[in-house]
Amino acid sequence: MGQKNNLRTPKGTYDLTPEVASVKARLEEICEKIYKKHCAVKIETPTFELRENLDDKYGEDTKLIFNLEDQGGDICSLRYDLTVPFSRFISKNLISRIRRYQIGNVFRRDNPSKGRLREFTQADFDITGNNLPMVYDSECIKICSEILTKIVKEFPIFESFKLKINDRRILMGIMEYLEVEEDMQMSICSTVDKYEKLSSYELRKEFELKGLSKSQIDTLQDLFDFSNKNSNENILEKLTEFKNTKITEAVEEMKLLLRYLKIYKVTNFKIDLTLARGLSYYTGIIFEGSFTGVEMGSICGGGRYDELCRSISTFQTPCVGFSIGVSRILNVLPITSNFIVKDCLVGSAYGKLLEERMLLTSKIQEKYNCEMMPGDNLNYKNQIKYAEKNNFKLIIFTGEKELENKTLQIYNLKTNDKKVINECDLFKELKNILQY
Amino acid sequence: MGQKNNLRTPKGTYDLTPEVASVKARLEEICEKIYKKHCAVKIETPTFELRENLDDKYGEDTKLIFNLEDQGGDICSLRYDLTVPFSRFISKNLISRIRRYQIGNVFRRDNPSKGRLREFTQADFDITGNNLPMVYDSECIKICSEILTKIVKEFPIFESFKLKINDRRILMGIMEYLEVEEDMQMSICSTVDKYEKLSSYELRKEFELKGLSKSQIDTLQDLFDFSNKNSNENILEKLTEFKNTKITEAVEEMKLLLRYLKIYKVTNFKIDLTLARGLSYYTGIIFEGSFTGVEMGSICGGGRYDELCRSISTFQTPCVGFSIGVSRILNVLPITSNFIVKDCLVGSAYGKLLEERMLLTSKIQEKYNCEMMPGDNLNYKNQIKYAEKNNFKLIIFTGEKELENKTLQIYNLKTNDKKVINECDLFKELKNILQY
Repeated sequence: MGQKNNLRTPKGTYDLTPEVASVKARLEEICEKIYKKHCAVKIETPTFELRENLDDKYGEDTKLIFNLEDQGGDICSLRYDLTVPFSRFISKNLISRIRRYQIGNVFRRDNPSKGRLREFTQADFDITGNNLPMVYDSECIKICSEILTKIVKEFPIFESFKLKINDRRILMGIMEYLEVEEDMQMSICSTVDKYEKLSSYELRKEFELKGLSKSQIDTLQDLFDFSNKNSNENILEKLTEFKNTKITEAVEEMKLLLRYLKIYKVTNFKIDLTLARGLSYYTGIIFEGSFTGVEMGSICGGGRYDELCRSISTFQTPCVGFSIGVSRILNVLPITSNFIVKDCLVGSAYGKLLEERMLLTSKIQEKYNCEMMPGDNLNYKNQIKYAEKNNFKLIIFTGEKELENKTLQIYNLKTNDKKVINECDLFKELKNILQY
Repeated sequence: MGQKNNLRTPKGTYDLTPEVASVKARLEEICEKIYKKHCAVKIETPTFELRENLDDKYGEDTKLIFNLEDQGGDICSLRYDLTVPFSRFISKNLISRIRRYQIGNVFRRDNPSKGRLREFTQADFDITGNNLPMVYDSECIKICSEILTKIVKEFPIFESFKLKINDRRILMGIMEYLEVEEDMQMSICSTVDKYEKLSSYELRKEFELKGLSKSQIDTLQDLFDFSNKNSNENILEKLTEFKNTKITEAVEEMKLLLRYLKIYKVTNFKIDLTLARGLSYYTGIIFEGSFTGVEMGSICGGGRYDELCRSISTFQTPCVGFSIGVSRILNVLPITSNFIVKDCLVGSAYGKLLEERMLLTSKIQEKYNCEMMPGDNLNYKNQIKYAEKNNFKLIIFTGEKELENKTLQIYNLKTNDKKVINECDLFKELKNILQY
C-alpha cells in the first residue's frame, strides 16, 4: 500500500492495541488498588523536567536521557524515571512525610535492538519521613510482594515470584573492608551485579581488569558463593565476621527486617549479597523482584535513598520506595481480550427501525455497555460475526414483529441460546445473564 | 532555603498535588466509564511520533510542536493531539471500524503567560467506519453531552453546559457563495470564529483587512446575527436560501441530526454558524462545549474528519470524534480532598506494641485502606491531628489494656465518637461505619 507518511512508531516505542491496552490497564489497576490499600496518594509530575535537574542524577546512564530541542525558553529533557521528579516535588513543596504513588511513562535512549523500550510505564510507590528502622522498608517489600502475588494469581503464565534483598551498606562495607578506592566502588558493584549472568571465570576476569588483587577477588567470590548457597540467617551470621561498622549496622537492621517480613507473612525472598542495582542514589536496603516460570529479567526494584533530596536542595527527608515495571510485565503476557467487557450489541433487522434501535441502545446504556450494530442491510450471520469479533456477550434483536408484540430477542454468544422476552423484562433478564 | 537545583517545573507545566491528581482521576474516570458504556476500547500511542507525521497536519500551529533533540536515530516530536496519532494508528493497522478512546497528555509550545498549558490531558473518543448519515455524529454529541451532564452534576461550581454545533460544509458553502478564494477560506473562517469575542465593528474591520467587500461582509454579518437570534429550525430554513450544494447537503443532514438528538434527549445545544474551530482537518459536523456558571472557554470539541487518514496513507475510513479537555476543566475546579479515601489509621500507644500494630494494620488492609501511625512516642492529640490532616475516617487504637482484654478502640473522626469494641467484631464494626 502506497504511503504518504511513514506509519511506524519511533524506534523503541509501540502502539498499544485495545487488547494490550486492556491488559496494561488491569496491571495498573492491580498496582493502584494495592497502593491505595496502603493509603498512598497519587501525584503527577510533568513528562519533561528542567535538564539541570536530571543531568547529574544517573551517573553513566545520563547519556540515555532524551533531550527536548532548544526552541527557546527552558532547556528540558524527558523524565528518565519517576523517583528524581518525586524528590524534586517533595523538595519544592517541603513535604517531609508522604506515601505517594505515581504511574507514568519514562523515557530512555536505550538500545531497542536489545529488546529495550525507549518509552515504558512504571508504577512507583514511595514513603518518606522518619520512622523506626525498617518499618517503612519492610512495608515497601510487603506491598511489592502483594502486587506480585496478585499478578501471579491472575496470570497463569507466571509460576511464582522471588525477591532478592541486599543493603548498600553491606556492599559498601565490603568495599571498605577490601580497601577498594572510593571512586572504583560503584564500578566494582556493577560487576558484582553480574554474578548470576557471568561464569566464575568471567567474573574473576572482570574484577581483575578493574584492578582487584587475587586475594580481594577470593574474598568476594567466597562470600558470594556462600550467599548463594546459604539461608538468610546464615548469611547475616557470616557477615558479622567482617567486623565493619557499616556492615554491622546493616546486619542488625536486616535482622529486624526478617522479623517484620515474618509478621507480614512475606516469604518469597532471599538475601542476595550480589544484588547491587544500577542507580547510584541508594543508601540502605535494595531489592529486586522477578517471576518464575518465564524467561525474563527483574520486573520491579527499589530501595532506600535517604540522600537524594539533599542532593537537590537543602531540604532533607528519608525515602524508601520501589517501582513496578508495568511495560516489562506486559511484554511477556499473552495478549487477551478477557479484560474488554462489552455487554450488549443491539442488532439490526436489515437496517430497519433505526430510530427504535437508537432508543433501545440508549436505554440499555443507562446500565450496561451497549452499542448499536453499525450500518444497514446486515443479515443475522454478519451480526453474530461482528459480535463475536468484538467480544460482545449478548445481541438484543428488535424487529417489526417484536415491536408489535412488545418483545425482544436475546442471543447469548456464550451459550448460543436464543430467547424471546417481554420488553418490560429486559433489565431483569440482563441482570440475570450478566450478573450485575 | 538554599537550592542546588532549580526546583520549579518547566514553564507551562505543573505538578499535580494529591488533591488535584485525585480530582483529575475522577474526571478521567467519568469520561472512561461513559466511553466504555458506549463500547469504546482503549488504545495508547507513544508520547512522541516521527516528526514527518506531524509537521503537515496543524497548519499555522505547526510552530507549536515540541521537537526532540536530534541525538541520532529517529527525528521525533511530542504529540500535539491524540487525533493525528490515532489516524496513524488505524492507517498502520488498516482498522476501518473501531470505537476507541484514549486519555493522554499532549504538548504545545503555547504561551504560558496567557494561561495556556504546555502539557495537558485530553480524553478523546472517536468512531470510524461507514454508517448511515449522522448516526455516529449524533452519538458523539450524545456521549459528549452525557459526560458534561455528569460533571455538572458532580461539581456544583458549574451551573450547566451548552454545546454549539455547526458544519464545515455550511461554512465552506458560504465561502463558495461569497466567491472567497480557496486559499483565503480558512483565514476568513478563523475570523468567523471570533464573532463572539469581537465587537461588530472589530469583526467587520478584520474581514475588511482580509479583503472582503462591504456586500460580502454584510451577508456574513446578517447571517451570523440571524444565527445568533434564531432557533435551530429557523437557521436551517434560512440556509436553504443560499441554494448551494454543500449547504443543502449539510442542512439535510443537520435535520437528521436534530431528529436523532431528540431521540437521545440531548437538549443543551444550539446551531451556531459562527463556530469554525481551529483545526483544518474537519470535513463535516463540528461542535464545541462549554460550562455556564464560570468564566472559561470551551472545554471540549470535535467533529467529523473524513479525509485525515487519506492525507496519511492510501488507507481511508470516515471518522468522527471529540476531545474532552480534562486539564482545562481541572483548572477551574476547586481543590478538594473529597476524592481521597482513607479508611483507618492504626493508632500508636506512645510507640509501644509496634509488632502488634503492624499485624493489625496488615489485617485491616485485607479489606480496607489502612496505614499505621508513623513514628514512636506520639500522643493521642497528635494522632488525631495527623488523621484529620490526612483525611482518615477512623483511628483504630490498640494498647496494653486492649490487648489484654482483646478489645480495640475506634475513634470516628466525623462524629468524634469513641467506642470500645471486641477485637473479633472489628470487621463487622468497620462495615457498619464505612458502609462497604
